[in-house]
Amino acid sequence: MAHVFDPGPVNEPFASLVQNYPGPDVYPSGSFRVEWGPLFHRGRLDGSARLLVIGQDPAESESVVRRILVGEAGHRTQGLMAKLGFDHSYLMINTFLYSMFGSTGATHAGDPGIVSYRHQWLDAIFAGNQIEAVLALGQLASDSWQTWQQTSNGKKHSPPFEHVTHPTQPESASGGNSTTLRQLIKAMLANWNQALVALHPQISNPDTPGPLVPYGTSFKPAERIEIPEFDVPAGLPEWMRSPNNWADRVGNTAAAKRRNITITIPSGVV
Amino acid sequence: MAHVFDPGPVNEPFASLVQNYPGPDVYPSGSFRVEWGPLFHRGRLDGSARLLVIGQDPAESESVVRRILVGEAGHRTQGLMAKLGFDHSYLMINTFLYSMFGSTGATHAGDPGIVSYRHQWLDAIFAGNQIEAVLALGQLASDSWQTWQQTSNGKKHSPPFEHVTHPTQPESASGGNSTTLRQLIKAMLANWNQALVALHPQISNPDTPGPLVPYGTSFKPAERIEIPEFDVPAGLPEWMRSPNNWADRVGNTAAAKRRNITITIPSGVV
Repeated sequence: MAHVFDPGPVNEPFASLVQNYPGPDVYPSGSFRVEWGPLFHRGRLDGSARLLVIGQDPAESESVVRRILVGEAGHRTQGLMAKLGFDHSYLMINTFLYSMFGSTGATHAGDPGIVSYRHQWLDAIFAGNQIEAVLALGQLASDSWQTWQQTSNGKKHSPPFEHVTHPTQPESASGGNSTTLRQLIKAMLANWNQALVALHPQISNPDTPGPLVPYGTSFKPAERIEIPEFDVPAGLPEWMRSPNNWADRVGNTAAAKRRNITITIPSGVV
Repeated sequence: MAHVFDPGPVNEPFASLVQNYPGPDVYPSGSFRVEWGPLFHRGRLDGSARLLVIGQDPAESESVVRRILVGEAGHRTQGLMAKLGFDHSYLMINTFLYSMFGSTGATHAGDPGIVSYRHQWLDAIFAGNQIEAVLALGQLASDSWQTWQQTSNGKKHSPPFEHVTHPTQPESASGGNSTTLRQLIKAMLANWNQALVALHPQISNPDTPGPLVPYGTSFKPAERIEIPEFDVPAGLPEWMRSPNNWADRVGNTAAAKRRNITITIPSGVV
């Protein structure tokens, strides 16, 4: 069977955008892991995107796959998009090109260089696609959208928009407490259901039409969906797209962890 | 300054080739690290290649960059190609798509499925490029070339060909003995000089014309050349192309090492 792959940003306007990304002069290295290189997108860059997802910033596995939202947040988002009827006609970008380091990244959300580069992407996406809905994962993503909406290009577009809780907010906020984690996931899924109820009727051309099936109080296995092969570069092994974690930052100090990504193939593969 | 990147195998005939690669049914997992996915090439796939380099099998860093010959062997090869006047009009493929595991990989060099897929690449390369010279790195690569030369397509082409010592043969054969390593590097560079003397006069259209400057008895720093940005995917950090090692297989057992690649950014970057 053919292994269909994602060609990536090889055609304009995206080819020029990825050749001219902002570096440490725009993204301060004290607040962002600029040393791992910028990460731009996941999904369709050929004009066929109808759902736009705005995320926050990339994590470990993204630095290896060179696509965004391929880790836990990505698998949950894949399930969320499926609830809206999208299994391939989507495009995801992040608020930040680089992974946030420490706690000061958010203070740069309004930095002109960061904003203007993201606006170039949003301008290009809306110029070349028929976007039917926009989903923001978390507050920073929502702010990114609202900021663009105030530009002259942004004012020309008013697709249905929903801001949902970031898909790994429960992990971030529960501090390792499993009871709190369950409660936060339950709350997040209730929040997601509200967004789905608002957006689902407004989708005219889903990939897979059907009634809305809301979330329960926890994720069912089928609600965390493998990243499709057609979203990643040619030849990537399947486990890099699986819902099992395979990348970690390892080190005894913050500095050592920052320089490290350790890839461990999930058990059962080899 | 624009960060020019390599679009990869996005156009035919290579797009179809990378969608239909052989898996563990052809490359036995006891002899090859099939779990890291196939690695296909480095260099030009747009018909502009004039030097073809055939290597052996990919290593750790290649599994992350998703291009071949980007580690130590790659930096030495980059210098070797430069001696022939090539700094961009080259294309490299390997004998094997997957990294050899243990000592039995070479016994599969003649397996029909492995050979026929490699021949599809060689057919496509010679159908679409004006190749002026072919360089094989090591015995397996030389055998790959000779095997293709005996096919009906191979018989139509007889470019100047040289088989040189594999660029990391000194490391493999010296078993950690630094005196032996120096001797083997000296011998390898003498071998490379012979190949250069044979090939250099036969290159009609180098990227950078000039007289042949042979190697001395050890590598000069400028003879290990950084992998060009235009050879790797968009957004990859510069240190992934530098001559400093940054990827290792780490683990207490062979099985654990096989499942691991540990990325450590070289010191001085962060």
